[in-house]
Order: sequence, then C-alpha cells, then structure tokens
Amino acid sequence: MKRALFPGSFDPFHNGHLEIVETASRLFESVLVAPVNNPQKAPALFTLSERRRMIAASVSHLANVELLDGYGPMLVVDIARKARADVIVKGLRVSSDAEAELQQAQTNKAVSGIETVLLPCSSGYSFIASRWLRDLMTYGGADRVGGLVPDPVFALVKEKFS
Amino acid sequence: MKRALFPGSFDPFHNGHLEIVETASRLFESVLVAPVNNPQKAPALFTLSERRRMIAASVSHLANVELLDGYGPMLVVDIARKARADVIVKGLRVSSDAEAELQQAQTNKAVSGIETVLLPCSSGYSFIASRWLRDLMTYGGADRVGGLVPDPVFALVKEKFS
Amino acid sequence: MKRALFPGSFDPFHNGHLEIVETASRLFESVLVAPVNNPQKAPALFTLSERRRMIAASVSHLANVELLDGYGPMLVVDIARKARADVIVKGLRVSSDAEAELQQAQTNKAVSGIETVLLPCSSGYSFIASRWLRDLMTYGGADRVGGLVPDPVFALVKEKFS
Amino acid sequence: MKRALFPGSFDPFHNGHLEIVETASRLFESVLVAPVNNPQKAPALFTLSERRRMIAASVSHLANVELLDGYGPMLVVDIARKARADVIVKGLRVSSDAEAELQQAQTNKAVSGIETVLLPCSSGYSFIASRWLRDLMTYGGADRVGGLVPDPVFALVKEKFS
Amino acid sequence: MKRALFPGSFDPFHNGHLEIVETASRLFESVLVAPVNNPQKAPALFTLSERRRMIAASVSHLANVELLDGYGPMLVVDIARKARADVIVKGLRVSSDAEAELQQAQTNKAVSGIETVLLPCSSGYSFIASRWLRDLMTYGGADRVGGLVPDPVFALVKEKFS
Amino acid sequence: MKRALFPGSFDPFHNGHLEIVETASRLFESVLVAPVNNPQKAPALFTLSERRRMIAASVSHLANVELLDGYGPMLVVDIARKARADVIVKGLRVSSDAEAELQQAQTNKAVSGIETVLLPCSSGYSFIASRWLRDLMTYGGADRVGGLVPDPVFALVKEKFS
Repeated sequence: MKRALFPGSFDPFHNGHLEIVETASRLFESVLVAPVNNPQKAPALFTLSERRRMIAASVSHLANVELLDGYGPMLVVDIARKARADVIVKGLRVSSDAEAELQQAQTNKAVSGIETVLLPCSSGYSFIASRWLRDLMTYGGADRVGGLVPDPVFALVKEKFS
Repeated sequence: MKRALFPGSFDPFHNGHLEIVETASRLFESVLVAPVNNPQKAPALFTLSERRRMIAASVSHLANVELLDGYGPMLVVDIARKARADVIVKGLRVSSDAEAELQQAQTNKAVSGIETVLLPCSSGYSFIASRWLRDLMTYGGADRVGGLVPDPVFALVKEKFS
Repeated sequence: MKRALFPGSFDPFHNGHLEIVETASRLFESVLVAPVNNPQKAPALFTLSERRRMIAASVSHLANVELLDGYGPMLVVDIARKARADVIVKGLRVSSDAEAELQQAQTNKAVSGIETVLLPCSSGYSFIASRWLRDLMTYGGADRVGGLVPDPVFALVKEKFS
Repeated sequence: MKRALFPGSFDPFHNGHLEIVETASRLFESVLVAPVNNPQKAPALFTLSERRRMIAASVSHLANVELLDGYGPMLVVDIARKARADVIVKGLRVSSDAEAELQQAQTNKAVSGIETVLLPCSSGYSFIASRWLRDLMTYGGADRVGGLVPDPVFALVKEKFS
Repeated sequence: MKRALFPGSFDPFHNGHLEIVETASRLFESVLVAPVNNPQKAPALFTLSERRRMIAASVSHLANVELLDGYGPMLVVDIARKARADVIVKGLRVSSDAEAELQQAQTNKAVSGIETVLLPCSSGYSFIASRWLRDLMTYGGADRVGGLVPDPVFALVKEKFS
Repeated sequence: MKRALFPGSFDPFHNGHLEIVETASRLFESVLVAPVNNPQKAPALFTLSERRRMIAASVSHLANVELLDGYGPMLVVDIARKARADVIVKGLRVSSDAEAELQQAQTNKAVSGIETVLLPCSSGYSFIASRWLRDLMTYGGADRVGGLVPDPVFALVKEKFS
C-alpha cells in the first residue's frame, strides 16, 4: 500500500483541506501533511509554526496521518523522496485550478518520476480558498471564518486576531 | 488496499487510456476497467465487443488489471458497488475537462458516497482524444492513428478500416 | 421596479433552479418563469406539460413569481418583449458555463437591447445539472434524485419512473 | 426597490465600468459606487482621491448613482451593510473572471447573507481591463487610453502623465 | 511567402469569419477558404452550395483569397496537402474555444506535420458564433442577423428565410 | 513577406520558446526576438544581459532570426513600430493562457492597429513554463532543468547555479 504526500501552504488550514486529508487517509496507507512556503506567493499570514499547530490539532483523530516537519525550502518532489512518499496528493476545488495542477503534476513527473493524484473537493467546500479567508480575518475579524475552518484552527485564529 | 474502477467509453482505447491504467495499477491493489456506453454521446464507432477485445489485448501485461464484463446500461456508481470497487479513477487530460469531471465526482459522491480520484495525463498524451481519433480513422484511414493507440488496438483498427 | 424573465429547459426543474427563482423574487418586482425547448439540445425527457406542473408546484409559495405559458418556438428575446419583461435572469452554476452565458447575453442585447443579469448559484447546488439528473433517473431510478429536486418534482419523478 | 453596491478598485475607472454603472442604474433604485483598495493587488496607480474624482465626474449624468466615501479598509460585505445596500453588483467582462467572481459571491453570501448579481459587459468593452490601461499609460503615455475611458477620466489622466 | 488554408463550417459565413480572412490576406501570400461539413456537428442549416455562394460574394474584394471547391469528406490536413497549403489558419473568438483549437492543432501536426496559426478576433465580433445566428434566423427571422453578417450573406439569408 | 516580433520575458528561454521561434521562422520572412521586462511580474531571475546571451546562443542556427537589443521600458506595440515589425507572434501553451493573450492582442490592435498571431505549442512542451523552471533551479539546482531548455541555456544555468 502507498504513502501519500499532501503539500500545501495551509495559510490557514481550512475545512476543504481537512476533507482532502480525510479522503486520502481512506485511500492510502498513510498520509504525510507537509506545510511549505510557496516562494511565488506573498509572505504567509500565519507562521510555519502556527500552521503546524493548526494541522496537528485538526488531524489528531486520523491514525494514519502524520505531520511532516523540519524541511527547509525544498522542491515538493524532494520532500516526497526524503519522506519516501509514493505519490503526491492535491485537492481540486474548482476547474480553474486544474491547469496549474496539471502543469505541476507533469513537471514533477518529468523531473522525478513521481505521480500526482487529484482529489475533487465536495461542492459545499469548493468556494473556501485560503486567500478569501485571509481577507475575512484581516478586515472582518476572526469570527467571520467560523464554520469555514476546523474548530482547533478557529480557536487559534481568535487568539491571534483579538 | 483499494480496488479502483476505471470507467469510460474507450471508443477507441488509446495510449492516454493505457497510461491511466498503468498508473492506477501502481497505486491501487487492483484496477477494474469498465467500457460503458455513454447515453449522452453519439453511437459508438466500435461495438462494445470490439472495445472489450481492444482493452483485453492492451492490458494483458498488467497482473492486477481486470476487464469488467456483462453489465448492461447502469450508473457508474452502481457498477462500482456491484464490482465492490472502493474508488472511481478517471484521467484528466486537459483543464477544460475538469469541470465535467468535478461535477460527475460530486454527483457520484452525493448519491452513493463513492469517491473519485483524477489522474493527470502526461503532456505528451494530452492532445489524444477519442473523438479526434474517430475522425482520423473515418476520413483519413486506419494508418493515421499509428503511434496514438496501443499496438493491439492498431491491429484491430486496420482490420476494421480496410 | 423591474419584471424579470427566467427562461430555461427545466428538464427537470431542480433545487438549483429554485434557488435562482427565490433570489430573483427578492431582487425584482416579479419573476416570469418560462420553460422553453432548446432546439440545440436532445429531445427533453419530460414533456413541456410535465415541466410546467413541476414549476407551478415548486414556486407556489412565491407571490410574485408567475409561470409563463402558451408560447411556441420563439427566441427568448421575443418572449421577453411579449411578456413585457425588463431583464433576463440566468443562473451561473460554474465558471465553465460563463462563456456561453456571456455570448447569449451579448447576442440578445445586440439584437433586442434587452439586458441579462447572472445570479451565482450557491456552491452547495453548483454540481446539480439537469443532464446528470436525467442519467440518474433513467439508469438509477427515481429515488436517486431525492434531495436534489424540490419535493413536488420528486413526487412527479417517482410517478413517471416507477 | 433595491439599492445596489458596486465595489471595485477603479484604477482607473474606464468605459467598461461606466457601462456597468449605467446598466445597474436602470435595474435598481439606486447604485452606490465604492472605490476600495484591494489588499491582494499591488499599490494603486491613482490615489483614492483621484479615483473618487474620476468616478464623480463620470457618473454625474445619472441621478440615482451615488459615490460612497469615507470608508477605511473594510470587507465589501461590511460596506454593504453600513450603506444599507441590498445587493452587490459586479461586471463580468470575460469568462475567465467568472471563477473568482463566483467564489467571492459565495463567500460573501456565506458570511453575510448578501447576494451578488453579475452584469455581462458588452463585447466591445470586454478587452478593457484596468491592468492593461495602467501599462498603456505608464509606458506609452496618457494619449494611448483615449477612447477607452470616459472623457473626464481622460482629462485627469493627461494631467497626471504629462 | 506562404499559402494559408482557412477551413470551417461557415454555416453561415459571418462578420467574424470575414475579419479572419481579411487579416490572413494581409499576413500570407494567399488564403484558401474551404467550407467543410463537420461530421461531429448537426446537419448544416445552409447547403454547401449556399455557403460557397456566401463566401465567394463576401471575399470578392480580396485579390489573394480563393474559394476551395470540389473536395469531398476529407481530413483538413489532407485538404491542406492537396491544395499545397503551408499552414492552417483558424480564428480564436473566445478563450473557451482555445482548448479544442490547441488539440486539433496538435493532432494535425502529429499526423501530418502541418502547423496551425490562431488569429484572435477583435472583441467587437467575439460574441458572434454561427450557432447563435442559426437560432436567430430560424426562430426570429432573417432580419435579426443584419449587421452580424456581410451584406451578400444577409441578402441570401433573407431570400432563404422569407 | 512579413516581419514578426516575438516579445517575452524569457526568464529563462526554454524549449517551448525555441519551438515558437523555429515555427515563426518558417512562416515569416524574419523573426525579431525581444526580451522585455514585464512590469507586472516579480523581478527577473536572470538579468536582461543573461537572457540576451541565452537567446543569441539558442537561435544562432536560424538565419532569419534576429535578437532585438537596446530598447528600454516600452510598450510592445512601440517596439514593434520602431523595429518595423508587421505582426506580433506569441506562443499559446495551454488554454488557460488564451484569455490574457486575447485581451493583449485586442488591446494592442485597438491602440496601434498591429495584429497578433498565436502559435500553438506542441503538447510535449506545453507543461514547460518559466515560472516552474525558476522554482526548479532555485530550490532543486541547475540539473533539474536539463532537457527542458536548449543546451546553451543549460550551460549558462549550470554556471549561475553552482
């Protein structure tokens, strides 16, 4: 059975991410969640340490899910190889994300041979994107994201934004 | 480990389909290939029996791949349940296919609970679509699809179109 | 205040359609629902008469919504003019529908001057499309669409498919 | 009848924006135009004050259109509530903008209940986007945007870039 | 200098098509316009003979444009080879057409080596698609397409639909 | 015969760019390659001087291709006019790039009259985008882009990243 790597910015980790982790945990032997800093995006709102706490608290009910830690700036395919993952898992929320995911998957396969599987988000979560959540929290306050993030994330968000 | 169902029209079965079967066979315990007639498409160019021969001959080198047979007109989720598949596998060639795949995946999950995983095609195969192949064979002759379909399919195509 | 025309195939009328009618009824003085046969689509699964019964039963709680009746094959802009509608209302479920809606809106404005407004569906309904529902009912039976269509439609569907 | 809020960066306010305001002013009781700074975009080329002058001068012929003023950094839904708007109005220029608009509309409805309506731009204006206009002015001079912006905006642009 | 083939259904030939022919006639030594029946579409509204008359009358002012004639059902790449064209020219109206055009171009290059160039339509014509025009004429009468097709086509349309 | 301008960031110049230059050199009398700094993108990874060396070394086998030099920050249409180019050439890798290319082409035609032609990339190169290459080199080292860039570029990349 296969080990799956789930990389992402997780800034913040939200209900759509949790759904992907839960689905992957049913399909694969183990799931390694790796929060990374995307160098092509603006600086993260939450520190890497805060995001690790969010994820650890949100996935603690899933026995075969593990939080990857201690990797510096590194290609996702190199994290996969170091962590002995067999496959990369990404969520697919909306069709307009598909092109970037296809290109990353094809680039990753071309330079390392590792495959990617895309897991469709359920429609009820498909509008939840971290970048809207960051605006909601920054300009509207922590309470605006209740119901859109796991409970442990909501607690941490309220702590940070009050 | 998980049993994956790979449904499709396969009219004809081409190199892009074979790539998906090979990838799925590495990720899952077993792969069940199910040629179905899509009632929303025009009548198939190849009979169901011809498509079964194409698939059987093209996947014979893969020990954990099985050709599903003997299902009448039936929803894919019902085929999955009857065949005791844990997950549906689809290929994702190009981003413009993503919306329809997301909707089918969400519909299938809503009415049956079964998940779908999407496997990105490698870019070299991404332009190969059955509908262009049908035109190539019908108006340009069997030789036009050489290199775009597995060898056993090419043999069957030449037989039919000469 | 403005009269809005909501045209569609409504084959069948589903929860996503009902959401659009309800939203439009809050924004406009009155909403005229017009089931039409789209000549570019395959023959409808439900007769025009069945679809009228579906709609009438589903919108009866909305005082300012009216079912348009008795129009033969006619352009939507001509229906709008005959019914003295000020604006055409369409739902926008998913981004891949946007191009066709933009072109229709621009064509309709160019040939008649009438404007179109697009109402985004809520994400929970965005995967519900009539064409998936037709497959679900035809191959899986009436029970498969429970929860995806208004109750009066579900009753009519069960009557027809049992 | 309904009050509509039309938020945007308007950097600069161009003919496509004006078309949306004019359409909205025919459909709704009043239209509130709210220039906002989008925190996810680069700093604006025109100051908020310059943009307010652009808008005020461009919409002065429309009796039921009002320029909103004096709001600091704030969520669009909070501006809507403060200004007692019933609905948010956005223009839809091209289909590739649809996904972001759908997600914003669904997020805004989820956190505040307020609806969004999308107004298709006419095709003749659909290529006009503020970001191309900023390049045209910055690298090619003010004269390059003549015909693409309302006359009062053109005057202000020439003043700034000469 | 190069000979360009411009294939299409041209059912009917409209102002967007004429724009592409005019642009191509400036870029290439000669332009060969080839009306073909697309076997994947519904039967044409206008006969091949009517479409030939439309095109001949609409391009008569362009010295280096030629109407290709007398080809039976044949792949576009085979027409190109027979007519000694160096390149295939297609118009690109809207972004949602791009995927199909890319796939056809890649398929055509893979099976014949012939290249394709895509010419962007100007935005004012981008909403004009033959399928909307067919509906306009069939259900609304010939007068509805005035201004959207070249004058000689409008004359022919009025003759046919009155 | 026509002179074509091929503008781009070329940061770095890769195999997909080379394919476009080679195709354009067969279709047009001469091809002018113009590396420009896109003011809407982040600062380039390679200096303009490095990118000029990349291009010069990669296109030296093409007699009718010329490297444009010595232009400061300037609109592409102004470069075209100064260099007496008749047409702008752009590559089209994937359908999701089409909207931005259409808008730029329409804007450029509106402000200067100059046409744009889009050349589809072959599918084998379609996943290669400069932004993925920059990540590969920065985080994975120069060796990761072997096979994705022309040999002279690979040599320069290894020199810079070791």
